[in-house]
Amino acid sequence: MKIFLAQQNYHIGNFESNRQKIIEAIETAKQQGGDLIVFSEMSVCGYPARDFVEFNDFINKCYESIDIIKQHADTIGVLVGSPARNKITKGKDLFNAAFFLYEKEVKAAIHKTCLPTYDVFDEYRYFEPAYHWNVIEFKGKKLAVTICEDIWNLGNNPLYRICPMDELMKQQPDVMINLSASPFDYTHAEDRKSVVRENVLKYKLPMFYCNAVGSQTEIVFDGGSVMYDKHGNLCKALPLFEEALESVVLNNDGTLAAPVVEPADKIFDTEFIPSSLNENLNIHQVYTALIFGIKDYFKKMGFTKAILGSSGGIDSAVTLALACEALGKENVRAVLMPSPYSTEHSVNDAVDLSKNLGNPYDIIKINNIYESFLSTLQPVFTNLPFGLAEENMQSRIRGNLLMAIANKFGYILLNTSNKSELSTGYGTLYGDMAGGLGVLGDCYKLQVYALAKYINERNLPAGRQVIPTNIIDKAPSAELRPNQKDSDSLPDYNVLDKILYQYIELRKGPDEIKAKGFDGALVDRTLKMVNANEYKRNQFCPIIRVSPKAFGVGRRVPIVGKYLS
Amino acid sequence: MKIFLAQQNYHIGNFESNRQKIIEAIETAKQQGGDLIVFSEMSVCGYPARDFVEFNDFINKCYESIDIIKQHADTIGVLVGSPARNKITKGKDLFNAAFFLYEKEVKAAIHKTCLPTYDVFDEYRYFEPAYHWNVIEFKGKKLAVTICEDIWNLGNNPLYRICPMDELMKQQPDVMINLSASPFDYTHAEDRKSVVRENVLKYKLPMFYCNAVGSQTEIVFDGGSVMYDKHGNLCKALPLFEEALESVVLNNDGTLAAPVVEPADKIFDTEFIPSSLNENLNIHQVYTALIFGIKDYFKKMGFTKAILGSSGGIDSAVTLALACEALGKENVRAVLMPSPYSTEHSVNDAVDLSKNLGNPYDIIKINNIYESFLSTLQPVFTNLPFGLAEENMQSRIRGNLLMAIANKFGYILLNTSNKSELSTGYGTLYGDMAGGLGVLGDCYKLQVYALAKYINERNLPAGRQVIPTNIIDKAPSAELRPNQKDSDSLPDYNVLDKILYQYIELRKGPDEIKAKGFDGALVDRTLKMVNANEYKRNQFCPIIRVSPKAFGVGRRVPIVGKYLS
Repeated sequence: MKIFLAQQNYHIGNFESNRQKIIEAIETAKQQGGDLIVFSEMSVCGYPARDFVEFNDFINKCYESIDIIKQHADTIGVLVGSPARNKITKGKDLFNAAFFLYEKEVKAAIHKTCLPTYDVFDEYRYFEPAYHWNVIEFKGKKLAVTICEDIWNLGNNPLYRICPMDELMKQQPDVMINLSASPFDYTHAEDRKSVVRENVLKYKLPMFYCNAVGSQTEIVFDGGSVMYDKHGNLCKALPLFEEALESVVLNNDGTLAAPVVEPADKIFDTEFIPSSLNENLNIHQVYTALIFGIKDYFKKMGFTKAILGSSGGIDSAVTLALACEALGKENVRAVLMPSPYSTEHSVNDAVDLSKNLGNPYDIIKINNIYESFLSTLQPVFTNLPFGLAEENMQSRIRGNLLMAIANKFGYILLNTSNKSELSTGYGTLYGDMAGGLGVLGDCYKLQVYALAKYINERNLPAGRQVIPTNIIDKAPSAELRPNQKDSDSLPDYNVLDKILYQYIELRKGPDEIKAKGFDGALVDRTLKMVNANEYKRNQFCPIIRVSPKAFGVGRRVPIVGKYLS
Repeated sequence: MKIFLAQQNYHIGNFESNRQKIIEAIETAKQQGGDLIVFSEMSVCGYPARDFVEFNDFINKCYESIDIIKQHADTIGVLVGSPARNKITKGKDLFNAAFFLYEKEVKAAIHKTCLPTYDVFDEYRYFEPAYHWNVIEFKGKKLAVTICEDIWNLGNNPLYRICPMDELMKQQPDVMINLSASPFDYTHAEDRKSVVRENVLKYKLPMFYCNAVGSQTEIVFDGGSVMYDKHGNLCKALPLFEEALESVVLNNDGTLAAPVVEPADKIFDTEFIPSSLNENLNIHQVYTALIFGIKDYFKKMGFTKAILGSSGGIDSAVTLALACEALGKENVRAVLMPSPYSTEHSVNDAVDLSKNLGNPYDIIKINNIYESFLSTLQPVFTNLPFGLAEENMQSRIRGNLLMAIANKFGYILLNTSNKSELSTGYGTLYGDMAGGLGVLGDCYKLQVYALAKYINERNLPAGRQVIPTNIIDKAPSAELRPNQKDSDSLPDYNVLDKILYQYIELRKGPDEIKAKGFDGALVDRTLKMVNANEYKRNQFCPIIRVSPKAFGVGRRVPIVGKYLS
């Protein structure tokens, strides 16, 4: 039996485009003698469609797509993801389903059992879990079909009471097939292979695992679909961060007619949690995910050109370099907006950066506008001393200038805030927190430095200096008052980032963090900053998610609260 | 048996303050001969605590509170809400629980079965549903204790497969007790009484129903706890929007030793959905909820003073009137910021308004700042014609001025955007969309007019004119270019609001809305505006929720999508 995996990039709600991709892959697979083709979870509508699935009209359109696609499933079996209506009158109205199409008919519908409802996932918001399990009989084989999370319910403390593969095993299946929409984070690609292999070794069956690829606002789906033989050997691995269509013949003995890529005895640590920041961090994958996240966001939104404020600091430098790589240097406009408190080296560094990258840039002094604000506000401010109000004012003038140019010429403003700043509230709402997409919002300051070094090393063979050394070496500063340094307001990033990681990624409480040897007062102060600034993050743009716990849709914390704040 | 209901306002994560309230009520009830006292759902930590419950430290603090509270539960039984750990190794780690405290011990823990995971609710994100059900035996009576949603699983198409009261009935209970955190919307107070009564009539048991009160960021809990006898008569109704502690003696025959407030035969329409906008809208309740929402937000955040931009339009006028009522007129500063395109009557109307209200106001012309932006940008904009960029620029100058004054003097900026504007994206990010709390973001333009008229009528007996007639009567305009009117860009609000209501509240698709007689092209254009502007709403502040479907945490729509857009 020749089985194809179609790893595709869907556009949420764009039924025509998704359908066309699906049909093209079916036709290709048919031409190449395929018996079965597997698509990823929710392929007809894209994942996650969120509250769109609450619209009957949206579900009708999913069913229309299934109806059109099934006409192409004549001699080939097709497994395609879609919401399905719950026909009984108890429970939620929908299932998260895989439709099995063959002989131009819907032959079966498989419902997802384990509904991820944590972090960025909200599936129980929409779907009823399955409570019947049946294999699909097809060309003499029994297919055990599951959907994404269904195969993740492993270990000694499983998240769900029911394990659907245990149920399906009662019917002696021949092969496991899984339709997934499993997103990237810097621990997840290896996790995913481990989980697939663990299932293979537990059930002693081959597995065809098809994942989605594509960036959906903040969530990056990285593909990496795999085919394992029943002995736990990886025989085919589809690429990361790109579409692919691959096939392998499944032999009757549960082996695959393809060479082993990675043998079964390779050890995976399925309990992998990075014990400290950057340990095991695959910086190349993070870099690739960010580029992909920018590129796909622009493509799906129909945008081509980006703008950003280039301050001469490390965050805007890395964002600019990533954006030039993703969108083409000619499509990224850097705007340098020195204020009376900007140092000359900052402007020079930012100019050098854009000269290295070859992207267009402007220098626009904000002094006159700043003066006009001060004189307009003089009757209100009278002779009160310079303070936070004047600092934020400068940042917001820059936000206004960037948005004005963006509005005038059709740019999208990229935000350059890093995760350390967002955690502590070290940023100005409507100023440097403005923008349509947060490129570095899921990277701590130390990780931004790691990215800068990676970008420079990557370009070394071509003899090209990208990010000027001075930008990497100098002490970080917002330059909103004379001689300002980040370290005036924030703990050293070497300590801060590690405390933040314990609190945000690992969800450790103050006592647990202090027990690791961090200064008690510093821990309390840091956690208080994090919790007291939830109101700022609440108004922040989507952030490209690269860690297991990003700010945004996957982290939901009350604004009005009094916990550690 | 004398039973107390303690309807209290908790501060999320403020364990000391919540505990103190709970203990005070227990002591009062003891002094008054109470046998049992019932608190609302999640009383020890506040509801919804959201991802705070993912912190082991937070759960420890809940258990510490239970330990302290139980020392006061000596001669009185206490039912108090808290997360509880799941001691088996399958499923989620927590339950949403009610602890029964008596004789200084935890005698029982009841777990919630029906976990709302829709709109603003995320309970299955955190909690495992109950799968054992037992009554609590106390002083010769069997108590059937449920938590909030547990009693809402009624009708012909119930949302959950299991109905916990059906299970509890197998043990012949004597009385139903429900701990709730059920929020306000303009349909919900009546719904809630209907549901309680429906349970009473179905199970033929008296019901003591204790709801939380208090505003939690965007969600307003309105109290309205009730006690019903077994015949379906309402015998005690606690007030809306305020704390209360009330008791009634439950007789052995299931009647209550209190006069009937509302007889069992009063008809409630449990399928109540307003078929058109404003129909059955209880404007007094909406007004009260908004005042309460502002007041409690400020109190819990530790703020006292608000600022807002007063344009002479209806939205800022209503927001200002509400804020003066909630915070005291001396604590609300209005800033009038005319631009070159502002009409004289707008400034006059805004001045009249503040004179009527008696609140402080400033007039700050933005002309000089606007000129300095234009001249600074001249090298970039060259001689391109006036357009959206220049319009938004003015709005963002105002945002910057308001934030500057707020930062300087410690005000919180109130946002004045209405739901019609937010729906269609008719607003400027970082400009008039700035602010810490959206007062009118869940009220369509027509509802804002209704509020304005209500506020004026409310003040008529005192002979006080609040909102000048001119503000109510003139055509709405953003005044960002000469002779601009909202109707240049938007459909007439009389039609627009009705289409929006069909789409947002009722989740009707385009065909269904057109079938109601709305113009097809107008429907398509409106839905496209709604969906294409998700990115703007994503960066908006929390909105006080008064409808069954508010923008914000209760409506989750992809930004990158292509559905009806």
